[in-house]
Amino acid sequence: MSHATPDIAPTEPLRRIPTGVRGFEHISLGGLDQGRTTLVVGTSGSGKTLFATEVLYRTIVEQGRNAVFVTFEERPGDVVRNVHRLGWDLPALLRDGRLVILDASMDRAFVEEAGDYDLSGIVSQVGHAVAELGAELVVIDSLGALFYQFQNPAILRREIARLCDNLREMRVTSLLTAERLEEYGPISRFGFEEFVSDCCIVLRHQLVEEKVRRTIQIYKLRGDRHYKDEFPFTIEREGICILPLAAAELTQASSTDR
Amino acid sequence: MSHATPDIAPTEPLRRIPTGVRGFEHISLGGLDQGRTTLVVGTSGSGKTLFATEVLYRTIVEQGRNAVFVTFEERPGDVVRNVHRLGWDLPALLRDGRLVILDASMDRAFVEEAGDYDLSGIVSQVGHAVAELGAELVVIDSLGALFYQFQNPAILRREIARLCDNLREMRVTSLLTAERLEEYGPISRFGFEEFVSDCCIVLRHQLVEEKVRRTIQIYKLRGDRHYKDEFPFTIEREGICILPLAAAELTQASSTDR
Amino acid sequence: MSHATPDIAPTEPLRRIPTGVRGFEHISLGGLDQGRTTLVVGTSGSGKTLFATEVLYRTIVEQGRNAVFVTFEERPGDVVRNVHRLGWDLPALLRDGRLVILDASMDRAFVEEAGDYDLSGIVSQVGHAVAELGAELVVIDSLGALFYQFQNPAILRREIARLCDNLREMRVTSLLTAERLEEYGPISRFGFEEFVSDCCIVLRHQLVEEKVRRTIQIYKLRGDRHYKDEFPFTIEREGICILPLAAAELTQASSTDR
Amino acid sequence: MSHATPDIAPTEPLRRIPTGVRGFEHISLGGLDQGRTTLVVGTSGSGKTLFATEVLYRTIVEQGRNAVFVTFEERPGDVVRNVHRLGWDLPALLRDGRLVILDASMDRAFVEEAGDYDLSGIVSQVGHAVAELGAELVVIDSLGALFYQFQNPAILRREIARLCDNLREMRVTSLLTAERLEEYGPISRFGFEEFVSDCCIVLRHQLVEEKVRRTIQIYKLRGDRHYKDEFPFTIEREGICILPLAAAELTQASSTDR
Amino acid sequence: MSHATPDIAPTEPLRRIPTGVRGFEHISLGGLDQGRTTLVVGTSGSGKTLFATEVLYRTIVEQGRNAVFVTFEERPGDVVRNVHRLGWDLPALLRDGRLVILDASMDRAFVEEAGDYDLSGIVSQVGHAVAELGAELVVIDSLGALFYQFQNPAILRREIARLCDNLREMRVTSLLTAERLEEYGPISRFGFEEFVSDCCIVLRHQLVEEKVRRTIQIYKLRGDRHYKDEFPFTIEREGICILPLAAAELTQASSTDR
Amino acid sequence: MSHATPDIAPTEPLRRIPTGVRGFEHISLGGLDQGRTTLVVGTSGSGKTLFATEVLYRTIVEQGRNAVFVTFEERPGDVVRNVHRLGWDLPALLRDGRLVILDASMDRAFVEEAGDYDLSGIVSQVGHAVAELGAELVVIDSLGALFYQFQNPAILRREIARLCDNLREMRVTSLLTAERLEEYGPISRFGFEEFVSDCCIVLRHQLVEEKVRRTIQIYKLRGDRHYKDEFPFTIEREGICILPLAAAELTQASSTDR
Ligand SMILES: Nc1ncnc2c1ncn2[C@@H]1O[C@H](COP(=O)(O)OP(=O)(O)OP(=O)(O)O)[C@@H](O)[C@H]1O
Ligand SMILES: Nc1ncnc2c1ncn2[C@@H]1O[C@H](COP(=O)(O)OP(=O)(O)OP(=O)(O)O)[C@@H](O)[C@H]1O
Ligand SMILES: Nc1ncnc2c1ncn2[C@@H]1O[C@H](COP(=O)(O)OP(=O)(O)OP(=O)(O)O)[C@@H](O)[C@H]1O
Ligand SMILES: Nc1ncnc2c1ncn2[C@@H]1O[C@H](COP(=O)(O)OP(=O)(O)OP(=O)(O)O)[C@@H](O)[C@H]1O
Ligand SMILES: Nc1ncnc2c1ncn2[C@@H]1O[C@H](COP(=O)(O)OP(=O)(O)OP(=O)(O)O)[C@@H](O)[C@H]1O
Ligand SMILES: Nc1ncnc2c1ncn2[C@@H]1O[C@H](COP(=O)(O)OP(=O)(O)OP(=O)(O)O)[C@@H](O)[C@H]1O
Ligand SMILES: [Mg+2]
Ligand SMILES: [Mg+2]
Ligand SMILES: [Mg+2]
Ligand SMILES: [Mg+2]
Ligand SMILES: [Mg+2]
Ligand SMILES: [Mg+2]
Repeated sequence: MSHATPDIAPTEPLRRIPTGVRGFEHISLGGLDQGRTTLVVGTSGSGKTLFATEVLYRTIVEQGRNAVFVTFEERPGDVVRNVHRLGWDLPALLRDGRLVILDASMDRAFVEEAGDYDLSGIVSQVGHAVAELGAELVVIDSLGALFYQFQNPAILRREIARLCDNLREMRVTSLLTAERLEEYGPISRFGFEEFVSDCCIVLRHQLVEEKVRRTIQIYKLRGDRHYKDEFPFTIEREGICILPLAAAELTQASSTDR
Repeated sequence: MSHATPDIAPTEPLRRIPTGVRGFEHISLGGLDQGRTTLVVGTSGSGKTLFATEVLYRTIVEQGRNAVFVTFEERPGDVVRNVHRLGWDLPALLRDGRLVILDASMDRAFVEEAGDYDLSGIVSQVGHAVAELGAELVVIDSLGALFYQFQNPAILRREIARLCDNLREMRVTSLLTAERLEEYGPISRFGFEEFVSDCCIVLRHQLVEEKVRRTIQIYKLRGDRHYKDEFPFTIEREGICILPLAAAELTQASSTDR
Repeated sequence: MSHATPDIAPTEPLRRIPTGVRGFEHISLGGLDQGRTTLVVGTSGSGKTLFATEVLYRTIVEQGRNAVFVTFEERPGDVVRNVHRLGWDLPALLRDGRLVILDASMDRAFVEEAGDYDLSGIVSQVGHAVAELGAELVVIDSLGALFYQFQNPAILRREIARLCDNLREMRVTSLLTAERLEEYGPISRFGFEEFVSDCCIVLRHQLVEEKVRRTIQIYKLRGDRHYKDEFPFTIEREGICILPLAAAELTQASSTDR
Repeated sequence: MSHATPDIAPTEPLRRIPTGVRGFEHISLGGLDQGRTTLVVGTSGSGKTLFATEVLYRTIVEQGRNAVFVTFEERPGDVVRNVHRLGWDLPALLRDGRLVILDASMDRAFVEEAGDYDLSGIVSQVGHAVAELGAELVVIDSLGALFYQFQNPAILRREIARLCDNLREMRVTSLLTAERLEEYGPISRFGFEEFVSDCCIVLRHQLVEEKVRRTIQIYKLRGDRHYKDEFPFTIEREGICILPLAAAELTQASSTDR
Repeated sequence: MSHATPDIAPTEPLRRIPTGVRGFEHISLGGLDQGRTTLVVGTSGSGKTLFATEVLYRTIVEQGRNAVFVTFEERPGDVVRNVHRLGWDLPALLRDGRLVILDASMDRAFVEEAGDYDLSGIVSQVGHAVAELGAELVVIDSLGALFYQFQNPAILRREIARLCDNLREMRVTSLLTAERLEEYGPISRFGFEEFVSDCCIVLRHQLVEEKVRRTIQIYKLRGDRHYKDEFPFTIEREGICILPLAAAELTQASSTDR
Repeated sequence: MSHATPDIAPTEPLRRIPTGVRGFEHISLGGLDQGRTTLVVGTSGSGKTLFATEVLYRTIVEQGRNAVFVTFEERPGDVVRNVHRLGWDLPALLRDGRLVILDASMDRAFVEEAGDYDLSGIVSQVGHAVAELGAELVVIDSLGALFYQFQNPAILRREIARLCDNLREMRVTSLLTAERLEEYGPISRFGFEEFVSDCCIVLRHQLVEEKVRRTIQIYKLRGDRHYKDEFPFTIEREGICILPLAAAELTQASSTDR
């Protein structure tokens, strides 16, 4: 523990970075928190990987920022293939040196029952890739896979907190996806992921009278204003489309938080 | 962990493979994901084995693709007998070398309490059968039986993920059935089966005011559009019949996901 | 694990065996699955023992088939006494060598804490009795008593699956009763009994606005059609009486499953 | 395990024994099962001890049958004092040798953490007292206190089942009280008490819109007809008074069970 | 275990002792059970300490009976300070030798992880103070703090039962406070506190449509009549004020329990 | 355990300290309890850190009292940055020696699995900072991070109680934030935080029909009157704004508690 006075003298204010996802800049009032970690939680199939991949794709293509994708569960080839129908040409980005996909899914082959795994290997790989590309965005999909590695939730919490620390030190904006088991009730699988991160987005696909309805909610965003309600979204030919149904309230929002 | 750039250069797009189950191609907008793993979850009696067997039967008979059925709980003779009333002549397919039924149910006789079981024996048997028949479809019924073998859910998750990896490497389309205990609430018994697979189908038989209603929902299908709602189905003389009640919305579906 | 091709060549179709319980043949569209295991689950007092005993009694008296009753919890004398009021003269059947009651309740006196109990002793006793009588029906009441013996649910699941295997090998039709703690929610106490058996019947006695209502539901029946709804039943002077309230729908049922 | 044929030849039918509790003979259609164990479950304050004590008091005074009361939680002096206001003169019965109160509450002073307690000491004390008095009724209040002694629910279940066996062998009618934590949901604290006993009565005191309502339900009664509904009761100056609100239905009950 | 016949011959009937809390004598039909233990359960902030302190204060000041307060969680100074606004001058009572506050909160500094703590030290301190003052009332606030000391709930249950035994032997009337986590559902934190005590009072402060409503309910009172409903109460300038909303029903109550 | 008589003779009455948060003095009827610990609980994003920081900021700027902020999860730089948009210039306060931010988040790097962590290091650091600044307010954000350190909830409860003791001995007013997982149901993550503290404030951000609504409730405040209802609040340009919707009832409140 140490006094904090000296090193924080010149405060940099928070900055937002646009995602390019249709409607997201509206509901977040500006995009993701630059240099911070955003958690994307949702049940299986809620669109976590799709959302994170679209942010990554548009950040590279529309903003000209390079990015690193770490996949814990799916194979890189599948990540690429899953967005092919949406016309997002990840292979081109890989060839152009604007994107690196790190395959952490292989690690499951070597994991032992003894629980003293740590994330430092992955962190250093990410560090190298970020340095190599001058990447400004890191996507990690998904924390659920850490289920394999840690028996003790306290250790897991510490490791995730340290992962966030490390990403912050790399000065990248990062997206972490995390699993949950039901649409309402506790936010996250392990019960602490949301507390550890600076921003938290909840994706839902809920069965209402035998119909499915997709929504997105910016659950928390430390340090700034944003909409906090649930907004419906659809997955269109060219990606996610958030319907800013609360748009009428937007003017009002310039003077108050909701 | 390794960089993914080189080996994914020539991306194969996702392809769909028809099942022949009445109504399924409609609600999935094309059938199962070829070369991938589809999880079929449901409570006991919801129709998992029936659905998987019908897909297998029609794939062989209508599409001319050979298949392997791995049974963990029921005896092969019972698998055959259960669909006899539906007129599906599995013995003929067995004789013609178009189908192999592997009996993994016997394994329960030899299992020990010590939890270091792994699925590699089954995987290699499946590999041989697939090679022998040139099979393109593998059905594994059901993961619930692994309940016997693994005390540690983290190990089980890893083993199921590796099983999916192995099936993908065999380049077969596969159907895995898995148990759940209640019609709503958490999707799967162990709380991770749905995250590990590429596609997830939920079967329900729900008691509403003392009447039972069967439904099917394509819960997730990575990488493509599909209907996401619950559709009623019945079991008719010749098999499952999904009622595309949302058919009116189908035109609309060609431009948007639901 | 072994290939299944050769030995299943001559498939015997499923056959039904009538129970004699009023209304049951209607709702099951023919009776119990011959040669298979039917699980009867319900809370305490829901009528499991009564149902199983009535099937046994009528199978002997009306169908002329001998039977074995294994009692895990109650004493044989109590089993007999409990149905005395209903006019079912079990002592006569015992004397005539058409029924044997095996008393497994005594075993609780000798059980040790060490969990390596297995069911092979009971299985071999049942085997002898079945052979002696040429019995075609076995009732086992109830699996709940196994609660004493097994600490590890995985072992218990395996043992119950093996018990079912053994009963099938004896070529008898069997009824197993099992406990549950609440009228709705998970089907069975241990969370797997229903998956292990071929047929599952749920008995309920539910308190609705301070009145009790008894119902029976054929929850699953592998390999054939049946009604799946909840049907009310009463216990009359001469036994169970299921009210086929859905009788009007019966004609319709000849062409579709419900 | 042993064949049951010989020793059960002369079947004694079930007999009922009146309790004297106002309304109870009506709703039970005759009283308690003679020679069997009846479980009385309820939350704290639901009236378990009062009901059991009233049955005991009236059995001695009105039927001329002696009785033994085993108290696990309260002191004998308190058992006596609690019913003083109701005019039940237990001290007189004690003096006249018609009642014995055994104090098992003291045992808590000597119990060790090591879990190998068994109930044989209590059983033999009860046996002596029953023999001494020629008692026909035994009340044991309450099983909840066994919570102290047994860590392993399987052992506890076996011990309670053996206690019931022992009481049956003494040929006494017995009442056991047992705890539950909520008015609805699982019947008993440990999840098996109701399965082990022959008859089960549920007492409730439920808060409905800030008013308390007491009810009694005969949850199960093996081997005979009875009302199964919830009946309101009050505690009057001279004891429990069950309101046979369903009395109109009583005629009907002579031909059918409810 | 011992026969109870001799020593309970001269039965003292239950007596009530007034509390002085406005409305309490009405709803309890006379006050607390003299010489017995009353449990006061409630969530945090429900008013347990306030209620117990008011009973203590009024018992000393209005009834002229001395009292002992044992505080497990708060410091004596805070106990005193918390009721200062209400005009209850505890320091004067302390000076006059009519009240002793025993500070058991200090014990937490010395507690070890090893769970073999027992309450005999506290009991003997209480015994001395009771003897010294000739105290007739003991307040123990609160049992929740025992959470620190006992890992094994069975041991804790036994210890609390023994504490009650000890207090009864001191012939004092006692109030024990205990924690619960939710306003409805299980009565107490550990699931047995209510069974162990002779009387149980539930305090609630419930959020209904964003408004808080305080209520008191006499949940059980062994051996006597009382109101059992929930009564609203407020905390006024001079202490708790229970609103006997059911007063109209009071006449009726003289002939029946509710 | 010790008699409390002598040292509490001169009772200091409770005093309130204003927070400066708009509306808070209204709903609390005067502010925080001076010299005591107030717990602020809420789900992630409910505004715990914001509320605590605003109290700290206004206490320094508006009341001229110095303060110490201990951060367990976020880095000091982030604490500062998060309130920059609100115009609260923490760096100036740090420079002027009116505020110290202690960084306890670093500790996670050194924590071991062995659970014998204690809070004495942090307590002594806080003690030094308080002495150095003559600080009157301490904020600790958040207890949730202790999740890392303690496996045994009993130890954790004791440690938090001792932390509160220590803060009381420093004679500072303190704010502790703590995590909860759902908006209703149990108040706190570990199930005892609310019992250990003198005052408890609950913050909620609840999703009602896809809209989020923020509320604040003073759940308990030992020793004094306050409003107990839920009040809506918003986060405006210059900080939290509690809407005293119950203002009309305020006059009434001067004579009664609610
Ligand atoms: N090209 C597409 N067009 C329309 N919808 C699509 C498309 N691709 C994916 N989807 C939809 O998105 C869903 C998958 O989203 P995604 O893979 O992002 O979910 P996820 O939250 O990452 O799930 P998991 O936790 O299982 O990985 C699919 O189930 C499908 O409904
Ligand atoms: N020939 C048939 N005609 C009509 N309905 C049938 C037929 N065969 C089976 N069924 C229905 O299908 C149900 C069984 O389906 P299936 O065996 O596929 O369930 P499952 O989900 O695999 O259950 P489990 O997990 O217990 O194996 C039966 O309960 C029955 O209601
Ligand atoms: N002769 C009878 N006439 C009417 N009803 C009866 C008769 N015998 C039993 N019953 C009813 O059947 C119920 C008991 O059924 P049964 O013993 O079959 O239940 P169970 O499900 O086996 O319970 P448990 O799990 O406790 O053994 C009794 O509670 C009673 O209500
Ligand atoms: N003389 C009486 N007159 C009216 N009501 C009484 C009388 N005696 C007891 N009661 C009521 O009966 C309740 C106690 O019943 P009893 O002691 O039988 O409950 P219990 O179910 O045994 O509780 P526990 O499990 O806590 O021992 C009291 O709370 C009181 O409401
Ligand atoms: N400047 C601001 N203007 C408006 N709203 C803001 C501002 N800063 C923060 N917020 C809102 O406050 C929320 C964060 O509050 P805060 O960080 O205090 O929550 P918390 O309860 O401490 O959460 P955690 O437990 O995750 O730390 C944000 O999600 C945002 O909605
Ligand atoms: N003088 C007072 N005037 C009005 N209300 C008061 C006064 N003192 C306390 N209160 C109210 O009583 C509540 C505290 O009650 P008390 O301390 O008895 O609760 P408790 O149930 O003991 O809580 P815990 O379990 O946390 O100790 C306070 O939250 C406050 O609302
Ligand atoms: Mg994903
Ligand atoms: Mg199946
Ligand atoms: Mg039975
Ligand atoms: Mg009792
Ligand atoms: Mg208190
Ligand atoms: Mg915070």
